[in-house]
Amino acid sequence: MHASPGPDRILEIGHAFRASKTLLSAVELGIFTALAEGPLDLEALRQQVGMHARGARDFLDALVALGMLNRQADGCYCNSPETDRYLDRTKPTYIGGLLERLSIEQYGIWSALTAAVRTGMPQSDKTMVSNFAPLYADTRSRDLYVEGMSARTQPAAKALAASFPWTDYRTFVDIGTSRGCLPAEIALAHPHLTGGGFDLPPLAPLFADYIRQRALSNRLHFYPGDFFKDALPSAEVLIFGRVLHNWDLAAKRMLLKKAYTALPTNGAVIVYERLIDDERRVNVDALLSSLQMLLASAGGFDFSGKDCISWMREIGFRNMRIERLTADQSMVVGNK
Amino acid sequence: MHASPGPDRILEIGHAFRASKTLLSAVELGIFTALAEGPLDLEALRQQVGMHARGARDFLDALVALGMLNRQADGCYCNSPETDRYLDRTKPTYIGGLLERLSIEQYGIWSALTAAVRTGMPQSDKTMVSNFAPLYADTRSRDLYVEGMSARTQPAAKALAASFPWTDYRTFVDIGTSRGCLPAEIALAHPHLTGGGFDLPPLAPLFADYIRQRALSNRLHFYPGDFFKDALPSAEVLIFGRVLHNWDLAAKRMLLKKAYTALPTNGAVIVYERLIDDERRVNVDALLSSLQMLLASAGGFDFSGKDCISWMREIGFRNMRIERLTADQSMVVGNK
Repeated sequence: MHASPGPDRILEIGHAFRASKTLLSAVELGIFTALAEGPLDLEALRQQVGMHARGARDFLDALVALGMLNRQADGCYCNSPETDRYLDRTKPTYIGGLLERLSIEQYGIWSALTAAVRTGMPQSDKTMVSNFAPLYADTRSRDLYVEGMSARTQPAAKALAASFPWTDYRTFVDIGTSRGCLPAEIALAHPHLTGGGFDLPPLAPLFADYIRQRALSNRLHFYPGDFFKDALPSAEVLIFGRVLHNWDLAAKRMLLKKAYTALPTNGAVIVYERLIDDERRVNVDALLSSLQMLLASAGGFDFSGKDCISWMREIGFRNMRIERLTADQSMVVGNK
Repeated sequence: MHASPGPDRILEIGHAFRASKTLLSAVELGIFTALAEGPLDLEALRQQVGMHARGARDFLDALVALGMLNRQADGCYCNSPETDRYLDRTKPTYIGGLLERLSIEQYGIWSALTAAVRTGMPQSDKTMVSNFAPLYADTRSRDLYVEGMSARTQPAAKALAASFPWTDYRTFVDIGTSRGCLPAEIALAHPHLTGGGFDLPPLAPLFADYIRQRALSNRLHFYPGDFFKDALPSAEVLIFGRVLHNWDLAAKRMLLKKAYTALPTNGAVIVYERLIDDERRVNVDALLSSLQMLLASAGGFDFSGKDCISWMREIGFRNMRIERLTADQSMVVGNK
């Protein structure tokens, strides 16, 4: 005899948006930053971050029940070790820029998922991903985006610095570099390398600041350009880090082709992404990221390592291999 | 030495809205109903439910990765045992009415959670919960709501039929009965009982249909009324099932007081809800439901058993006790 399956998992997933938005709003409100200086009682915390009395206690106790806050015996709230480390804006380990973007920009766009699946059309006026010019024109949205990207890039960048045979190469350029988190990590780990990052001109000052703070200005340079209009800079290694998924298949192929043209013989292209597993059965985050592309870009989609290797092969790359970088990101490497 | 805590749990919760909305949109699109008749390949399923080619495969494979669909070796999609049982509209076990409401009405409201916490003001024009008149004026929204309520009531109703000492009583009325799911379950289990359900007049035809289908029309009657304006009907047992959380503290007390007035001496009031645990540390679903009340009602909030007992005691009820009904709902009972 089998018990008939219960609806628990269905109800759990179906309601999960509420816990998710609660955490995102808490980051947006600066709860964890306020508590980083020490525990506060309900009233003090409420005043400090600007919460109305109605709902504040339920909101904070929901965060306690989610394990994102602790409540002491005296009733004061304090951060958990995780939220203290990652959600305090004043710490360099802050990853909340990403979560603020999820809260302000992405959560709302997903309310139109049904329409996006029916029509295939993006559901945001901004279509953030495929239209970086207006994104970068607004300083706050530019900074939020760039900080979010750095937070996501850091772990993959450290892994890439460690796992690629950099001693075989002298120069590299990161295509779509944002403020340069990736080239900075690689250059810090490998003093013989020079190169830099390629991105749209509005990112030049952010790149310059970030690289100068790490004392790398003598080895890393910013290459301003638009990869739809301009050729890519030449280097022995060219990197596309979470770039290709933003674009439709024609643009993906065009970018790989431009990289092929810009590389010397034996040069390497590195594509790293949150790849979908080849069988498309396991990596739910990558599949959901692809739906994010559906919602917010004109033609973008995520892809598997198998997909990427087939595009590289068509263009003429050889010796393709896939290597895991982090729990959720992998690189596909090919040589010219 | 301790490893420093990772951000995995933060990122998991922060991104969970995407999986949630994917499932909700799939219910809305009727994916599981379409597959209940048998497996379909991508193209056939896409045509049948009306999905654009862009995104459809990612959408379905995300549901596979979430365990909500299976994909066979021949590439055809089919339901999981759970989704076949609970998300096929043609089955009596369908709970998707609730999920359709989450998808269409509630998901979007939560995008304004930050504003709700800052201001204490509801963020929906409809303020569904505290304004049933417009909700019931629209047939589709009325039916969705009523079906969703029945799906949520069924397990608690069966438990309440089994665990309350009904042999000590002869009459009962369910206050805010919707189409009468709760009195039907109780009356089916206890042939000696008579009574019915009290709710707004537009629900009368739905109640009549539902009760007639169960051959209970001779024992259960509909009591039309507005509990803000009218007295409650008299019976030996009066039940408030997930009613009190919709209203502010003054209304909660007023309703318990009206029940006290309507009951005979030794009569019983039963309040069942998804109660917050007394320590407000564990029951995250109840705390999040309270934030739903913040977002969608003028003054509603969820509460603990301890809270409810204190209100009952003020009014004059005695012999209060709390009993668990289902995994997530409990009843507070008091006698006059």
